[in-house]
Amino acid sequence: MLGKYITNVRSSVPLVHNITNYVTVNDVANVLLACGGSPIMSDEPDDVADITSICGGLNINIGTLNKSSIEGMFVAGRKANELGHVTLLDPVGAGASALRTNTAVKLMDEIDFTVIRGNISEIKTLAMGSGTTKGVDADVADAVTEDSLDEAVSFVKELAEKTGSVIAITGAIDLVADKDRCFVIRNGRPEMGKITGTGCQLSGMMTAFLVANPDSPLEAAAAAVCTMGLAGEIGWDNMKEGDGNSTYRNRIIDAIFNMDEETLDKGAKYEIK
Amino acid sequence: MLGKYITNVRSSVPLVHNITNYVTVNDVANVLLACGGSPIMSDEPDDVADITSICGGLNINIGTLNKSSIEGMFVAGRKANELGHVTLLDPVGAGASALRTNTAVKLMDEIDFTVIRGNISEIKTLAMGSGTTKGVDADVADAVTEDSLDEAVSFVKELAEKTGSVIAITGAIDLVADKDRCFVIRNGRPEMGKITGTGCQLSGMMTAFLVANPDSPLEAAAAAVCTMGLAGEIGWDNMKEGDGNSTYRNRIIDAIFNMDEETLDKGAKYEIK
Amino acid sequence: MLGKYITNVRSSVPLVHNITNYVTVNDVANVLLACGGSPIMSDEPDDVADITSICGGLNINIGTLNKSSIEGMFVAGRKANELGHVTLLDPVGAGASALRTNTAVKLMDEIDFTVIRGNISEIKTLAMGSGTTKGVDADVADAVTEDSLDEAVSFVKELAEKTGSVIAITGAIDLVADKDRCFVIRNGRPEMGKITGTGCQLSGMMTAFLVANPDSPLEAAAAAVCTMGLAGEIGWDNMKEGDGNSTYRNRIIDAIFNMDEETLDKGAKYEIK
Repeated sequence: MLGKYITNVRSSVPLVHNITNYVTVNDVANVLLACGGSPIMSDEPDDVADITSICGGLNINIGTLNKSSIEGMFVAGRKANELGHVTLLDPVGAGASALRTNTAVKLMDEIDFTVIRGNISEIKTLAMGSGTTKGVDADVADAVTEDSLDEAVSFVKELAEKTGSVIAITGAIDLVADKDRCFVIRNGRPEMGKITGTGCQLSGMMTAFLVANPDSPLEAAAAAVCTMGLAGEIGWDNMKEGDGNSTYRNRIIDAIFNMDEETLDKGAKYEIK
Repeated sequence: MLGKYITNVRSSVPLVHNITNYVTVNDVANVLLACGGSPIMSDEPDDVADITSICGGLNINIGTLNKSSIEGMFVAGRKANELGHVTLLDPVGAGASALRTNTAVKLMDEIDFTVIRGNISEIKTLAMGSGTTKGVDADVADAVTEDSLDEAVSFVKELAEKTGSVIAITGAIDLVADKDRCFVIRNGRPEMGKITGTGCQLSGMMTAFLVANPDSPLEAAAAAVCTMGLAGEIGWDNMKEGDGNSTYRNRIIDAIFNMDEETLDKGAKYEIK
Repeated sequence: MLGKYITNVRSSVPLVHNITNYVTVNDVANVLLACGGSPIMSDEPDDVADITSICGGLNINIGTLNKSSIEGMFVAGRKANELGHVTLLDPVGAGASALRTNTAVKLMDEIDFTVIRGNISEIKTLAMGSGTTKGVDADVADAVTEDSLDEAVSFVKELAEKTGSVIAITGAIDLVADKDRCFVIRNGRPEMGKITGTGCQLSGMMTAFLVANPDSPLEAAAAAVCTMGLAGEIGWDNMKEGDGNSTYRNRIIDAIFNMDEETLDKGAKYEIK
């Protein structure tokens, strides 16, 4: 039962340092508040070490990276590792540009990440691109479907073993795995893809779950994925005639705000492979 | 009938690269998703050429320009021109500062834009400031009204001829023109001015319309203007007691999400001069 | 009666230059529009002097400062002082990092601020850190409560005298003081803390109130605090089952959009000490 992991977030109010893109940053902040955490944003290299030091976790999202923020990612990541903080990498757009791919790969090489979370295309790019993960068979399908599920589960477990990170691949079916176990999660709605930044929001929230549940990173990451997906379902049920993606955005964050242990326990749809 | 131009957006899901200001960027992304497009944001000079290459169109908005993003605008613009991609310039604040005016004029001089979209004040600044447009009579009124309409139509057609771009001037009455024809559009609500960024949103959405309708830039731009204005009307009709500009913002994006060919055909209010 | 101060905003539509963080900037813009003002954002050092020159006031918020925007803050602040414009400092995160503390203190040393607005922790940091304020007893409690009220009132008046600025400390009880008088304000809802950026929004709106009421900075600042808090109360009353912090954000801005003189006069809860 994954409900207790959100209860732990609400009772401990984890402070999360986010180096994240300017497109979805406001939603990331409000989702962190909605789930019971507390957000701080800072990307200036001269500021990030101090900020990360007072937080419990670091969420690095490369969505609108620039030369200065890239430097900030490395400074903050090293400091977070030094302090034993939880760290998460969201490699937005890895594979779409050389700078994004190289930055994500270099971050994986130099920083220990508790979790790496992306879509299948981004994660495959990292699996192929990183020296650390040499030898991982990234020749999986470009979408996780019932047909490609077993193959994808093997891929994500192998990548988790090579990297030492929990790997979370989100899509129609979500996979969250360490080397031994993979949560296969079937929460969510396809309409969530019509809102910008549900992935970024999930990465921020997941970091709070990881901070609040330091002994169970795999379960905490899976609980965050179920929370996001279930909020997408609840939010959709609350849509009225004339509503669209902007209202849906609000409805999802509202549903996270109102999510409790019992709702999550009842609504989470997953199996462990 | 302009409805088919949004149908073409929904069926082709154009990917649009946005170099846009951080004030309204989230709304730009959600509007692009609402109309059937797909947004990517990137302003780092070392990232933009790759990103623009995988997109169908480029939307340059100078709203919160800085030295680095200005460089990104030129790099991306040149690459988009080289690839024959659709390009749009939104000269936010041209006339309000030397840096904005000079950047917009230099962009017009060095990059071929499919469309230039701004308010009358910004467009007049560009008409006076740019060598390309020397000789255009920018001595038109500071607002497009029924009284100044003929004069404004002549101005916008002449500017379109000199620049080789479709020119879109938005305000109480919107004008979208090439050298021969000018769409005079009377959709919209004055209350849209109480929301930040409806112009930025329109520029993002218009780029998607241009990508999806490569043979009809004038009609595509006019259809985007009608879609935005009509969404403003529908959104306003959906307002309830106690609602204000924040809810109105959501209602407009929701109306774009729900806009279909028939609604647009029925609701678009325009004449061609 | 503080209601007339928002009427003055609505009748004069003050233009406010904001150098503010990218987390909450969209909400700051929409709140400025909601209260009757008009926002412009610019942080590029080469752009800010021109932009601030055409505005009536300058709002500096250090929330996601970087090397370039810090330079912009000083350039804009000096220009605003030179022109006799209203200036406001929101020292977000002062005390959380050396860069933030030092930047805020240096801004206070070099720029004359009409108002400095922050939470008790940030304001205490500035009181201790600034040479200007040497000798101020910052040994007050970390929250303004009924028990610590008298002590806090003395502190804020003394800091106002030393700095020459109106000081606004917001929290469960808000204090807005010059050297002689302190408005003790009891509007607001604790749930406002579950939305990102209500403080940033207040700083933007307060700057508009200051521009529109040049002869009464203390009353204007207090009126802005009451407006925000009262909007938080009205917005909360408009919440329905299933609503959460994202909808609450919209409801608060909507309530500001609908706020009039009579509502503010009736709803403002304050005493002067």
